[in-house]
Amino acid sequence: MTEFLFKDAFSTTGPEPAAPFTGLPRYNFVFGHNDPAEIPVEELARSAEKVIRENGPALAMYHLGHGPQGYKPLREFVARKLVETRAISCNADDVVLTSGSLQAMDLVNSTFLEPGDTVIVEEFTYGGAVGKLQRLGANIVAAPLDGDGIRMDALETILADLRGRGVRPKFLYTIPTVQNPTGSIMPMERRQQLLSLSERYDLPIFEDECYTDIAWQSESPPALYGLAPSRVVHIGSFSKSLAPALRVGYIVASWDVLSRVLGRKTDAGSPAIEQMVIADYFGAQFDKHLAALKPALRRKLDVMIDALDREFGTSAELFVPKGGIFLWLKLPHHVDVRSFAQSALDQGVAFNPGPEWACDPDSARSYMRLCFALPDEDTIREGVAELARICFEHTGVPERRANVVQRS
Amino acid sequence: MTEFLFKDAFSTTGPEPAAPFTGLPRYNFVFGHNDPAEIPVEELARSAEKVIRENGPALAMYHLGHGPQGYKPLREFVARKLVETRAISCNADDVVLTSGSLQAMDLVNSTFLEPGDTVIVEEFTYGGAVGKLQRLGANIVAAPLDGDGIRMDALETILADLRGRGVRPKFLYTIPTVQNPTGSIMPMERRQQLLSLSERYDLPIFEDECYTDIAWQSESPPALYGLAPSRVVHIGSFSKSLAPALRVGYIVASWDVLSRVLGRKTDAGSPAIEQMVIADYFGAQFDKHLAALKPALRRKLDVMIDALDREFGTSAELFVPKGGIFLWLKLPHHVDVRSFAQSALDQGVAFNPGPEWACDPDSARSYMRLCFALPDEDTIREGVAELARICFEHTGVPERRANVVQRS
Repeated sequence: MTEFLFKDAFSTTGPEPAAPFTGLPRYNFVFGHNDPAEIPVEELARSAEKVIRENGPALAMYHLGHGPQGYKPLREFVARKLVETRAISCNADDVVLTSGSLQAMDLVNSTFLEPGDTVIVEEFTYGGAVGKLQRLGANIVAAPLDGDGIRMDALETILADLRGRGVRPKFLYTIPTVQNPTGSIMPMERRQQLLSLSERYDLPIFEDECYTDIAWQSESPPALYGLAPSRVVHIGSFSKSLAPALRVGYIVASWDVLSRVLGRKTDAGSPAIEQMVIADYFGAQFDKHLAALKPALRRKLDVMIDALDREFGTSAELFVPKGGIFLWLKLPHHVDVRSFAQSALDQGVAFNPGPEWACDPDSARSYMRLCFALPDEDTIREGVAELARICFEHTGVPERRANVVQRS
Repeated sequence: MTEFLFKDAFSTTGPEPAAPFTGLPRYNFVFGHNDPAEIPVEELARSAEKVIRENGPALAMYHLGHGPQGYKPLREFVARKLVETRAISCNADDVVLTSGSLQAMDLVNSTFLEPGDTVIVEEFTYGGAVGKLQRLGANIVAAPLDGDGIRMDALETILADLRGRGVRPKFLYTIPTVQNPTGSIMPMERRQQLLSLSERYDLPIFEDECYTDIAWQSESPPALYGLAPSRVVHIGSFSKSLAPALRVGYIVASWDVLSRVLGRKTDAGSPAIEQMVIADYFGAQFDKHLAALKPALRRKLDVMIDALDREFGTSAELFVPKGGIFLWLKLPHHVDVRSFAQSALDQGVAFNPGPEWACDPDSARSYMRLCFALPDEDTIREGVAELARICFEHTGVPERRANVVQRS
């Protein structure tokens, strides 16, 4: 292997070098993978063939000739979906298609933030979001959660305290509908309280709805953007509703925001075939697809809950999610999941330690996030049993598994 | 249209807001569009159908389960192509697939640069590259060009001068093979001189080969990376050899570099269907595709040269490119192309003003870049005639068109 001679030329800031990829763990409860059995293989194959036959020559043009906001039929589909399912009033001009919702997040962050700015995020939230904010030099303030999302009394205290210190937070980043990692859905009344705080404290809201399409209930309360479009930036994704390897997400906001986002989108466009395929397939079969996907995910969640009940018993407190692909759980307070995460990975069991999904890592030492979408049902059962075995070896918890007292 | 209420929360640094997209110009001589007639529509449609049928369930996994470096069969194809055509010794482990070569550029820049760092670039170069370097706060030093690329005597003077001032340039960014915008190919002897300077002055080289696959001649001199892999980072793209709307490019470098690049690639993967389609189609038909594409582009170049000869006569000095999709030309020194660029655009004629493709904008005031790949032959002829008419109206040049003296 060739060595690079000028290592002293590397930037000394920025993230750590990555480790080489060594394959997927046998029991893979991490990342936002989806259910392979629910990928509509035949339909996507036929869609891809059809859209390339119809629009192939346009691939010679950046953005398929549709401009930097992206492929217009997909923007039209996004707008229609948001009108019908999220009480959002918008059209294709209000949508920018992105390379996944991670790029959407980068673009929105960059539109607002300079180093030293303050942002408020949920105390437990998507680890990637915290990492991105930290790399931008933001001061992160944690808003406490309960089973209905952000606690508004606590948020008001934070906002009043910041105002008292002359600090204007640039935005609140929130996942109100199927929160990551807790799986909660913020009720309507609390959404209205949040928007009232936004008004009283001049607080822009950055709403991430990447899991909304796979909420178990058929109707969630309206999106925050639907309730107050002049105070909210809304992002979403097709990673969870269709497939994460397709890198397409979207931003919906007023032109004041989108024009700044587009000034920062210097990638010459997001993937064209994937935009066309999603527009064609979801344009015809969005409802049908979700009607199959949601119960399939729900079944896997039930399998995981059963397995956790059997293997961990009362040692694990489960936060049963209202949708999505992951389960957040808490072990007894003296357990620090970091003490066995690497050992578990070495033995083929991958989970997200709570501290990686928290503003204050130590506050989530006893928590973990388990994604249930990828493994099949038997693998979920075996993996949870392995997890319990490894956890017991390192922490003495769970004391009982399947009603049998463990002895170390 | 909803207005965003918190405009005072926007970052005050960063690029200007974008203007709304108003459609494509009638005579479109800008961007790196390709030839719509040369998109292999049937083949891509069949490839897409096939790869989705074969690998569809893997779309449920980030990176199709192949890890952050990207879809392995495409990395294998890239390595094979580089071994066979660029004298590069590498394999799939040496390749990171990216979302176009623009993301590759962002990742490499970020791996090396901190604000205030110095980089050397060709005096005329890709405008997007200069913009990216400026946004990162780099000091840009221009290396003079002649018909064979960077002048080595001038580069040595620059390096000696920087060393004398205690400045270590982080890298030289170069497009040695079908240079953008001049269309030159650096001869072998000069490549060796460049690598000798790299050795003597500890100069890392950032080699951009996005146009190499469409050089007219069948064999270009070896890639710089092929000659000195421990001192070069190599990037390339499928935008020019296949289609720019497919967002797939690549970085080839030692693991020291790639591990840092991957630490910065926080997008959860580049587009999966596009990676699979390119691997399948180019894996079987790369040579055949280029054997059709190159003469088609060459014919359009000839049409453009004929039209420029007819419309501009001796007023335009043409730098006939050795490949690629654009032509660089110079009008008489007193003509500043910026004086009529907007008026031309308003009349449906879009070109790249030289100043946007230069480190020192004023040094390229009389230059322009014309892309010939997108318009059909009649549109090229009409557009060049329109360009000459508009140019004459604003500058009195060309005095003669089609051997007829112009009167204003």
